[in-house]
Amino acid sequence: MSTAESIDLAAATEHLQRTGQVQLVADWANSRAHSLHLAEGLSAEDQQVQSMPDASPTKWHLAHTTWFYETFILKPFAADYQAFDSGYGYLFNSYYEAAGARHPRPQRGLLTRPTLAQVHAYRDHVDRTLAALIGGAGVHPEVLRRVRLGINHEQQHQELMLSDIQHAFSLNPLKPAYQSRWPGPPARREPPQWRRLTAGMAEIGHHGVQFAFDNESPRHPVLIGEVEIASALVSERDWLTFIEAGGYRDPQWWMADGWAQVQKEGWEAPLYWQQRERQWRVFDLSGERELIAERPVAHVSWYEADAYARWSNARLPTEQEWECAASEPALSEQLEQLQTALWQWTSSAYAAYPGFRPSPGALGEYNGKFMCNQFVLRGGAHATPANHTRVSYRNFYYPHQRWQFAGVRLARDAQNRGD
Amino acid sequence: MSTAESIDLAAATEHLQRTGQVQLVADWANSRAHSLHLAEGLSAEDQQVQSMPDASPTKWHLAHTTWFYETFILKPFAADYQAFDSGYGYLFNSYYEAAGARHPRPQRGLLTRPTLAQVHAYRDHVDRTLAALIGGAGVHPEVLRRVRLGINHEQQHQELMLSDIQHAFSLNPLKPAYQSRWPGPPARREPPQWRRLTAGMAEIGHHGVQFAFDNESPRHPVLIGEVEIASALVSERDWLTFIEAGGYRDPQWWMADGWAQVQKEGWEAPLYWQQRERQWRVFDLSGERELIAERPVAHVSWYEADAYARWSNARLPTEQEWECAASEPALSEQLEQLQTALWQWTSSAYAAYPGFRPSPGALGEYNGKFMCNQFVLRGGAHATPANHTRVSYRNFYYPHQRWQFAGVRLARDAQNRGD
Amino acid sequence: MSTAESIDLAAATEHLQRTGQVQLVADWANSRAHSLHLAEGLSAEDQQVQSMPDASPTKWHLAHTTWFYETFILKPFAADYQAFDSGYGYLFNSYYEAAGARHPRPQRGLLTRPTLAQVHAYRDHVDRTLAALIGGAGVHPEVLRRVRLGINHEQQHQELMLSDIQHAFSLNPLKPAYQSRWPGPPARREPPQWRRLTAGMAEIGHHGVQFAFDNESPRHPVLIGEVEIASALVSERDWLTFIEAGGYRDPQWWMADGWAQVQKEGWEAPLYWQQRERQWRVFDLSGERELIAERPVAHVSWYEADAYARWSNARLPTEQEWECAASEPALSEQLEQLQTALWQWTSSAYAAYPGFRPSPGALGEYNGKFMCNQFVLRGGAHATPANHTRVSYRNFYYPHQRWQFAGVRLARDAQNRGD
Amino acid sequence: MSTAESIDLAAATEHLQRTGQVQLVADWANSRAHSLHLAEGLSAEDQQVQSMPDASPTKWHLAHTTWFYETFILKPFAADYQAFDSGYGYLFNSYYEAAGARHPRPQRGLLTRPTLAQVHAYRDHVDRTLAALIGGAGVHPEVLRRVRLGINHEQQHQELMLSDIQHAFSLNPLKPAYQSRWPGPPARREPPQWRRLTAGMAEIGHHGVQFAFDNESPRHPVLIGEVEIASALVSERDWLTFIEAGGYRDPQWWMADGWAQVQKEGWEAPLYWQQRERQWRVFDLSGERELIAERPVAHVSWYEADAYARWSNARLPTEQEWECAASEPALSEQLEQLQTALWQWTSSAYAAYPGFRPSPGALGEYNGKFMCNQFVLRGGAHATPANHTRVSYRNFYYPHQRWQFAGVRLARDAQNRGD
Repeated sequence: MSTAESIDLAAATEHLQRTGQVQLVADWANSRAHSLHLAEGLSAEDQQVQSMPDASPTKWHLAHTTWFYETFILKPFAADYQAFDSGYGYLFNSYYEAAGARHPRPQRGLLTRPTLAQVHAYRDHVDRTLAALIGGAGVHPEVLRRVRLGINHEQQHQELMLSDIQHAFSLNPLKPAYQSRWPGPPARREPPQWRRLTAGMAEIGHHGVQFAFDNESPRHPVLIGEVEIASALVSERDWLTFIEAGGYRDPQWWMADGWAQVQKEGWEAPLYWQQRERQWRVFDLSGERELIAERPVAHVSWYEADAYARWSNARLPTEQEWECAASEPALSEQLEQLQTALWQWTSSAYAAYPGFRPSPGALGEYNGKFMCNQFVLRGGAHATPANHTRVSYRNFYYPHQRWQFAGVRLARDAQNRGD
Repeated sequence: MSTAESIDLAAATEHLQRTGQVQLVADWANSRAHSLHLAEGLSAEDQQVQSMPDASPTKWHLAHTTWFYETFILKPFAADYQAFDSGYGYLFNSYYEAAGARHPRPQRGLLTRPTLAQVHAYRDHVDRTLAALIGGAGVHPEVLRRVRLGINHEQQHQELMLSDIQHAFSLNPLKPAYQSRWPGPPARREPPQWRRLTAGMAEIGHHGVQFAFDNESPRHPVLIGEVEIASALVSERDWLTFIEAGGYRDPQWWMADGWAQVQKEGWEAPLYWQQRERQWRVFDLSGERELIAERPVAHVSWYEADAYARWSNARLPTEQEWECAASEPALSEQLEQLQTALWQWTSSAYAAYPGFRPSPGALGEYNGKFMCNQFVLRGGAHATPANHTRVSYRNFYYPHQRWQFAGVRLARDAQNRGD
Repeated sequence: MSTAESIDLAAATEHLQRTGQVQLVADWANSRAHSLHLAEGLSAEDQQVQSMPDASPTKWHLAHTTWFYETFILKPFAADYQAFDSGYGYLFNSYYEAAGARHPRPQRGLLTRPTLAQVHAYRDHVDRTLAALIGGAGVHPEVLRRVRLGINHEQQHQELMLSDIQHAFSLNPLKPAYQSRWPGPPARREPPQWRRLTAGMAEIGHHGVQFAFDNESPRHPVLIGEVEIASALVSERDWLTFIEAGGYRDPQWWMADGWAQVQKEGWEAPLYWQQRERQWRVFDLSGERELIAERPVAHVSWYEADAYARWSNARLPTEQEWECAASEPALSEQLEQLQTALWQWTSSAYAAYPGFRPSPGALGEYNGKFMCNQFVLRGGAHATPANHTRVSYRNFYYPHQRWQFAGVRLARDAQNRGD
Repeated sequence: MSTAESIDLAAATEHLQRTGQVQLVADWANSRAHSLHLAEGLSAEDQQVQSMPDASPTKWHLAHTTWFYETFILKPFAADYQAFDSGYGYLFNSYYEAAGARHPRPQRGLLTRPTLAQVHAYRDHVDRTLAALIGGAGVHPEVLRRVRLGINHEQQHQELMLSDIQHAFSLNPLKPAYQSRWPGPPARREPPQWRRLTAGMAEIGHHGVQFAFDNESPRHPVLIGEVEIASALVSERDWLTFIEAGGYRDPQWWMADGWAQVQKEGWEAPLYWQQRERQWRVFDLSGERELIAERPVAHVSWYEADAYARWSNARLPTEQEWECAASEPALSEQLEQLQTALWQWTSSAYAAYPGFRPSPGALGEYNGKFMCNQFVLRGGAHATPANHTRVSYRNFYYPHQRWQFAGVRLARDAQNRGD
């Protein structure tokens, strides 16, 4: 290889790398702006409250996503970085044991100080320092890698900002709307059809060079049986039929733990459904409304999704089945509401993929330590930021949790066809 | 009596009555302004939070005290009164069963709507209507009576605004000050002396024409034994001695329920005392500070007050003893910190006076339905609004509660003199 | 005085003292036998169980009453006493902090070892040693004093054995009878009449040389108002009227804490009342039965007693009123069901009498440390051992507790007469 | 085929079938006797208690295993069967919703009636009827199938009788032994070695005609990676090293839920390990003893097993890996403590096998409704009845549960070899 050629190659490489960096900085700036955009219609008071331990205040999300950059990039990589406030490390650590002690999660809503204005100043401080660090040449590749992680991290919190404020507003008897024109998940265009997966050996898990979380790796082979998957999600009308058929009163459809939960909590419908004068009303980001027949039912727990599936003489798909269905071009073309409507509960307990190794250090706590007692959801929701999800994405929640944007896509063993 | 005389008398009466009304309106306006004044240094976020079910947000106090006037005066007495917002009756009822359903107490902190600005508008609306109603002639005497009650009610909430915000701030690791120059309760001028009460038959309870709550009546005879009462309150230095003597670790000083509470909650000192590097620090409305030796110890529960008294070879005074001591001119001149420092726990369970009859209707719920499981406190605190308290005043809290401005004045049976 | 005379006097004194001792030993032996007699119809399994933390197993009662003698008499006073089992001190201490650590109260029902047979052997061992100690001459007077206390202590546990086994049996769907012919509290002979107390100064508290608990002293003056007391207890028929009038559904009759309890526990009737096919059934020591119209209603809490009284336009008597009524010969002759039917809730919070001093040492924990948060009951129940109670006797329980043999006698202010 | 031949064939078939039935009846009789044998050393009191909601009284186990036969065989199949007691259906149903209402699980320990003697009579009654039904010719095949299920069901309860009584005894300060010579799980003969599994496609799940539970089917293909499994279980000495290395104090080894559990419960060692004067003592069925270095550590939760594995730079095997290892003759010969020592936690969440269908009716509740939130254990324990377990057997418990006879066998990815 001649020198000229090698020089060209280096330049090209630098160009490519530089292009990637430019894109990264743009993505980062957009994602930072988007968080503030989501909070725009909310008063300082709205951004203060925490309606349950699972949820966090908007203001806390704004601060924590900033803390993430400060802790994992600025402190280790920005020379002479001065922390904005030495107390914030304690206040805005979410769950990283290796990052030190932290404020008790159920008390996030009590932090009236720092004020929202101070949190905005904190964001500005960190953003300015980080922009200077990543905008120039010679950035350490690990910094760029962590910025990409930070963007994805903030995107997850953007979705949480929406689910959490919806929960808080739902407990206010005035039933305020987050945004009266919020569109919600798209209704299905057609009644669901059963679509056949290709049986046999397949592969799932992340591949390629784009960003993915550590829990999506390593890519590995799986066996797929003779299975069919529904082309669309279960709708509000479908769910009403389940309710009216006594679904919430008959233990035969439920896992034992689910039935115990139904009885303890007095569940009679999805979260945010309330009966007023014998009419069901649904509360969502647009306020309170009537049922919309073809809109996918949201805010159901895994217990409910599983019971509904059993009542339907079907089942939930495994996460392997879901990913294979979404990865086969011919098949995925036939599936609607795949990543734009609601997360879809799978029958798979959240666990490590064969050969999984968490990242070293505190960032290894991001996903790995939650790999028990939760179930995987696949897809993506109307509230998920654009470009955040992908077919290998693994979302996970506890089977009793309902405040997320979660719905149901059914599957069944193909021999069911004659049923 | 001649007609002329009787006319004079009528005019005089009207004058007097009119004077009383003018004073009442002035008191009312002052008390309304005072609530807003207390909230001045607090952000909308500060005014939003509720740090425990016992406490309420500042904003809620501002709204509830307004609801009280709207519900008990404007709705029944102001012709054609239009409620500011039909939903507020539900949101801002505290505990009046007869006034209808109400928002669950532990969820007051979730009411980000109405906003603080809307609550201010609510206050304006009610104040304007009420001012018009009570500023003129021919006001129904019951209206004036209820305005006086409303003023006293709002004064109670003014003290709660302070105790509640102190509690909320105490849970913030940044330890914000409500007002960095807040003076706190006055230190005693002299070491406490034992002062002898006059033994025998005496009378306690409200008398005269000034306002008093229903629970201070009827006035009735009591028997006072050979008793001595301390001329000043137990101080922070005194309490430190108790702590260092192992007072929180030895069950012999404690009621069984108190000891169970100490162990369950891990109490080692008064609420708001924290040890940092072997030094006790006290959090109060002025922020975090060192102990002040002669300042009266505050934020102790009845259990602690009672245990401290037993350890001191003394006891708490009964409420009868306290009131008699405070009513004897010669004796009360010898007692400091009587109504200006801290409320003082008595050994008396809160109960109805002989012949007590609560007011009819919803207002009868004001005091009567709490007459079990609580203990009486007497006196008044530095945080109590001016002119709010009196010697017959009966404050009451549960024996485990500590977030109020409560301290300890000791008593003992006179035969103790030789000890 | 001549020598002869003085000798006679000494002999007479000794005779008297000796006679008292003989009586004491007989009483002691009877009370020991009575505990076993009460347990006769119960299997080893019945005597094992603890149905809630407030209750204790029969076997535990048999052992604990024995531990009491061993700990407070044999160990300090019997020379060379060998403990039956060194582990029992830990197992059978109830609540005496000064007597050392103890087995957790809620786990008493788990002590399958020692077996019932071993507990019987423990009783034999202690009884034999104690009989030898107190049967002879020259016994230390403190020993005799403590034996009298031990007898009264065991009598209290005899009543608890009955209330506790009734509670355990009530939770068994087979509804076993403790004794199918158990008579229960006597029905009233006549409808209740209002009886007037003598108003003015009176005295209450223990006097004389007979045994009484420390909490009944010192005797002291009290003021009695113009009061009337009911000649008989509230009956099951009366209570049914209260239920059917919606008494359990209307907050206006209830203390706030009581109403919260009603709602939390779903109370609709006294403990042990259950509706089967629209008929109320009552479970008691004789098994399940129909209502008995004139029998006094039992197993109501203070909250219920207080609410019932308010609904009846009456109130509960104070303990001072109750004792004065029971002490006035002319009046007490007119009151039925005074000490033989059910304990009667008073409106008096349990507190120290003026000048009260608990006994020194561990025995001072017997009563004194419970003097908060409880209410006084007066009288005695059909389940109370003979000769155990007296007019100055102060029983005490928490206002929510219902498993004791407690009922209601009403009082009212005399000016009520015209109502 | 000639007639003679076909006759012979029929006789042979009948003979075979008959032989199977004879064996079944013998197995059944043995298993019935074995339950009583296990209870022999326990007093009626011992057999009464329930030390926590997860455990049941011995007496209840004796009755419930009888109820199982009565409900699922005698009532549907024995003509004119008279229930022993009509109330027992309610008392002794464990969790079968389709079999009607049932006594609350946490209150099983309160059922002093029926007495142990009555439960023995119940067993006799059912056994006599069932023996008559299954001892003769012409028995319905479904009856025989259910008897086999009943035997296996009772065997599961036999193991529970042991784990439950050990738990109850552990809470007794006297630390009684169930059987002082109880041998416990066998110590490993050699230090553990890593053994390589055959990678690639394999099959797991029940096959053949012997009894298996429904959750072991259908047999299905699985993929096995490059994996090594330990030849022996983790020992008490190994675990002590983990404790002393601070394993219970360092969150890096723990799942987030596990770490929360450690902190909430104050775990510092396996259940039944207690430190006395700086020496660890272990309580088991033989009483309290010192550590035994090579004995497998028992009574650890999944959380602990998982944390230990991570600390060891290893992991738990999946249930697929475990079953394949145990099924490969060459490999399983190299593994000790496979089914005779302790159940072994796997990393597999308990879930349905592909194509799983629960049995119809109430018996379908046996396993299927528990297929969430639990983890699979494989192998068998010293306390497991002989002939009860097999390589396809799937035991399952919640990850926090510790009172079962559960231990740890490690696995690792083969690329670990160079570590």
